[in-house]
Amino acid sequence: MKMIQIILFIFALISYTSNATSSAKDFCVANLLLPTTPSGFPCKPPSLVTANDFSFTGLVAGNTENRFRLGVTTASVNNLPGLNGLGISAARIDVGFNGTVPMHLHPDASEISIMVEGQMIVGFITPTNLFVKTVNAGDVFVFPQGLLHFQVNSGSGTAVSFSAFTSPDPSMQVLDELLFANSLQTSILQKVTFLDFEQIKKLKAVFGGTG
Amino acid sequence: MKMIQIILFIFALISYTSNATSSAKDFCVANLLLPTTPSGFPCKPPSLVTANDFSFTGLVAGNTENRFRLGVTTASVNNLPGLNGLGISAARIDVGFNGTVPMHLHPDASEISIMVEGQMIVGFITPTNLFVKTVNAGDVFVFPQGLLHFQVNSGSGTAVSFSAFTSPDPSMQVLDELLFANSLQTSILQKVTFLDFEQIKKLKAVFGGTG
Amino acid sequence: MKMIQIILFIFALISYTSNATSSAKDFCVANLLLPTTPSGFPCKPPSLVTANDFSFTGLVAGNTENRFRLGVTTASVNNLPGLNGLGISAARIDVGFNGTVPMHLHPDASEISIMVEGQMIVGFITPTNLFVKTVNAGDVFVFPQGLLHFQVNSGSGTAVSFSAFTSPDPSMQVLDELLFANSLQTSILQKVTFLDFEQIKKLKAVFGGTG
Amino acid sequence: MKMIQIILFIFALISYTSNATSSAKDFCVANLLLPTTPSGFPCKPPSLVTANDFSFTGLVAGNTENRFRLGVTTASVNNLPGLNGLGISAARIDVGFNGTVPMHLHPDASEISIMVEGQMIVGFITPTNLFVKTVNAGDVFVFPQGLLHFQVNSGSGTAVSFSAFTSPDPSMQVLDELLFANSLQTSILQKVTFLDFEQIKKLKAVFGGTG
Amino acid sequence: MKMIQIILFIFALISYTSNATSSAKDFCVANLLLPTTPSGFPCKPPSLVTANDFSFTGLVAGNTENRFRLGVTTASVNNLPGLNGLGISAARIDVGFNGTVPMHLHPDASEISIMVEGQMIVGFITPTNLFVKTVNAGDVFVFPQGLLHFQVNSGSGTAVSFSAFTSPDPSMQVLDELLFANSLQTSILQKVTFLDFEQIKKLKAVFGGTG
Amino acid sequence: MKMIQIILFIFALISYTSNATSSAKDFCVANLLLPTTPSGFPCKPPSLVTANDFSFTGLVAGNTENRFRLGVTTASVNNLPGLNGLGISAARIDVGFNGTVPMHLHPDASEISIMVEGQMIVGFITPTNLFVKTVNAGDVFVFPQGLLHFQVNSGSGTAVSFSAFTSPDPSMQVLDELLFANSLQTSILQKVTFLDFEQIKKLKAVFGGTG
Repeated sequence: MKMIQIILFIFALISYTSNATSSAKDFCVANLLLPTTPSGFPCKPPSLVTANDFSFTGLVAGNTENRFRLGVTTASVNNLPGLNGLGISAARIDVGFNGTVPMHLHPDASEISIMVEGQMIVGFITPTNLFVKTVNAGDVFVFPQGLLHFQVNSGSGTAVSFSAFTSPDPSMQVLDELLFANSLQTSILQKVTFLDFEQIKKLKAVFGGTG
Repeated sequence: MKMIQIILFIFALISYTSNATSSAKDFCVANLLLPTTPSGFPCKPPSLVTANDFSFTGLVAGNTENRFRLGVTTASVNNLPGLNGLGISAARIDVGFNGTVPMHLHPDASEISIMVEGQMIVGFITPTNLFVKTVNAGDVFVFPQGLLHFQVNSGSGTAVSFSAFTSPDPSMQVLDELLFANSLQTSILQKVTFLDFEQIKKLKAVFGGTG
Repeated sequence: MKMIQIILFIFALISYTSNATSSAKDFCVANLLLPTTPSGFPCKPPSLVTANDFSFTGLVAGNTENRFRLGVTTASVNNLPGLNGLGISAARIDVGFNGTVPMHLHPDASEISIMVEGQMIVGFITPTNLFVKTVNAGDVFVFPQGLLHFQVNSGSGTAVSFSAFTSPDPSMQVLDELLFANSLQTSILQKVTFLDFEQIKKLKAVFGGTG
Repeated sequence: MKMIQIILFIFALISYTSNATSSAKDFCVANLLLPTTPSGFPCKPPSLVTANDFSFTGLVAGNTENRFRLGVTTASVNNLPGLNGLGISAARIDVGFNGTVPMHLHPDASEISIMVEGQMIVGFITPTNLFVKTVNAGDVFVFPQGLLHFQVNSGSGTAVSFSAFTSPDPSMQVLDELLFANSLQTSILQKVTFLDFEQIKKLKAVFGGTG
Repeated sequence: MKMIQIILFIFALISYTSNATSSAKDFCVANLLLPTTPSGFPCKPPSLVTANDFSFTGLVAGNTENRFRLGVTTASVNNLPGLNGLGISAARIDVGFNGTVPMHLHPDASEISIMVEGQMIVGFITPTNLFVKTVNAGDVFVFPQGLLHFQVNSGSGTAVSFSAFTSPDPSMQVLDELLFANSLQTSILQKVTFLDFEQIKKLKAVFGGTG
Repeated sequence: MKMIQIILFIFALISYTSNATSSAKDFCVANLLLPTTPSGFPCKPPSLVTANDFSFTGLVAGNTENRFRLGVTTASVNNLPGLNGLGISAARIDVGFNGTVPMHLHPDASEISIMVEGQMIVGFITPTNLFVKTVNAGDVFVFPQGLLHFQVNSGSGTAVSFSAFTSPDPSMQVLDELLFANSLQTSILQKVTFLDFEQIKKLKAVFGGTG
């Protein structure tokens, strides 16, 4: 632990105490130096809050030079601490030509997606149903919490959308990373997914998994 | 009440009953024909749900030819019934040159705003503070629930932003409409706002209030 | 920061730790020396809790010698720490002859008001409706969360009521203070409220606003 | 079932349907003719809501000529339908000389109590603690949800207090009625409470229990 | 729709109306004949509730003669209507020798699992971690909401556990059924999962998927 | 306070700070060394979390050699910190021949009970009703939050059940301990329960109460 962090931490504690008589009203801006709780981060003293706590600059196109041709930029409580306790955050999603947002889920958030450029096939799956649609600029789609969903660029250029989530710090779990990026033994993974041994080994090699 | 509505209503009830053994899992798409509850609308039977229930087409620029030069288009539970029970919705806001989103509040929702075009001065107020910032494309700002806020087009053209709300059907209350569009007696309004009699009369004439 | 606060703070931390094995059950009395969270203050160790933590003495008539002839006394988590996490608090409201509770709102709480003396005209407003009523001792009125509301003494003496709120520490935002007590530039305020320049300047002078 | 109820019910359904396009915003006044849900009653169509839905007349002294010398008058969703979904209600409690609010609990609500006249000994109990205090006019006390509590008139006249609850329709469970007013077999009750057989029989006779 | 259902439905409505004056306190037993809402089913009139509404008989070993050698028996709101609105349900899980609870998730519930017989390897995965453990009778394990998890019988006989869930009607989504039991086009599925075409076709044949 | 605790506490704080940039996703394992909040304990840094945080060994038969012949073993946030924030916990209940789970309540949790061995009479009471049933292995019963309930071994041997609760750390309040184990004055207790003076004295002697 760096000395600067200790100093910041003590400063954080002291600044709280010196404002102990003024409780947090109207908002609860995150003090990211203190440990979070199930309801979010402790609040910064109101006297230290500024307009910058409620804004984030840089929700621009992310780098799409990767396996998925996917760029994701997020405005969450980590860079927009005014979101703390409010149950919402946002992201910009850029999907290059022929790219995808691969099959994934958010265990802790529903997502509303607004198409602003290009065309995508979007959908989510349940054990008994498939809900899929081709969307263009001006179309909105909602992915209920915890359901596996995907987006495929079906247009002739980059596809761009904005999403909002029902959590100030949603988790994004890509299925391939869940299955093939950790150390779960191949024999067990095979047994609980019915995937072939070779298939698993092949994708573990791609996504960095061991075991 | 139109006959068609009665028929639709009876159909709605029957379609529920005939599906009574399959409870709603994974999502609860609104049956807008039945009365809503504090937690949202009753759910459509899963067997009647399609991908269209999770999408909305038309989140495009609204008409800005009005007093505020403001166009608001919304994707809420009323036109995107899959949002029911998920606690989120979206809107597109277009503000013409020199226009505004006038001082307003959402009593039931926080709002996250994503600038996509132009420039705006945005902010919210509390009895003891002012949080204001000039935002451009790629900037994000959050307005906590129930706080009075505003946006002013400070650029040289139209300003465009997308917003998401922590409610599937947020209320938008413009301050001028709250104060000057209803039948609250001028003498009472004067007494509880300290506004001048003439000021009130002038704005009641603009916003349609009586009394 | 005063030395006594540092000592109290360290004592607070230590007292927690020494009770770490007994988690908080049945109640969570606020430790007001530690920073609050979106769900409320951290809990005092149960071994330090006494009956005084659940009581407050002094919900008596507040001073009404002010602009509004309004006295408000509150029992909130700040002086009644046993309210922490329980989602409720109370207040006594005294309104002198010809006085008012000026137009205001609570962004984070609904309010139930019990008249105990005198007569008042009470009401709340929405963009499309006005709900107003004359109430006397024994009458109850409810103001839903986030809606602008007001009370006017319409009797021949002081009016007294008790209120309870759905928050252990509700925010009270008087409209005049929101608009005219901060540093929002008059030109912007004018633009987003349609109030006249002179009207704004006049009320900024009264309520202490600058800009 | 009375014919008038059937007619009212059908009217209720129809009135909903005819307003199906205007969803409930700002409030959700209970339609008490329809079945309630875990989140409260379905909402009345906004077009049928009036100021009377948000008010109740008659929070006055209840009749204290009973075993406990206790009068309780309540303003709950049943007579103040605007409370629906807001999580709050109120009551007036009158305790005659030498009377009590007997040991009881609210399984679904915390209670904040405001003394307005007389003197009472109030308190609540946990398996390991007793929190008790003598309160007078102007004192406030809070009873956390689900905890057994009591009030004893310790003054020389009637004691009066107002309470608010964190539920629009709280349950009041008097311990004696729980134990001695139903048909639970005396032998079982004896076994699970360790009370003597004669004691149980004596109190069953008082409170109307059988078995 | 069968006539008997219409009759039951009308009976359900009428029985509500005739009890309209007694609101649901202490519990809200599901009326499974009426459509559910985001907060659960409407409540049965209290006068019709019996002890049977709070009990379920038959949480016994399910049939394990299937692909997974897995038997799941559940006590949910559908067969134990007293669970309505309480946010909990239970299940018995039997896993035959060499069987599994295949990789699955509950988008709407956390799960606590109590081992009562045999031995299992249990675990859940996140994009960056693997949490896995061998459990025996008397061991408890928790699977947080929305996370992919699995159980493998690692003992020499049948393994038996009881689970409870934080929902009265949790959804169980087996990964293989999500991916291979619906009509999602193989080409799209391939693109968003990186699974091989042949692998997908093979498992679609096993789990009944088309496309 | 022991030195080891101070050291552990400082270590806990430091370990948080050094991980301040990685917020808690997917789960929030309790740091039991820090004070709890209304939403639960602060989260351990994800980097320190292991599979052991999500498991508990020892949900075995508790000692039944006591007044009630009752053994209760619990898996709560205190010994299974991964339950933090998830709203669930579990217990094993063993009731010896002729023993009971005496009349008690959980002010903060509903309970689902699964019978696995023997026979019990179980039930709960409201002021107007009694819900009671004889249950055997394979039967499930639910006790709604805050209601007084009991279990009586009605079989010929030990009765065993597992319970789950809608709280990670439920409170168990045995009625006899509430009434007869604290220092509430006998004269007051008599007045608010109508129990005889001798009855109270007798049970205070049994359960350790004074006053």
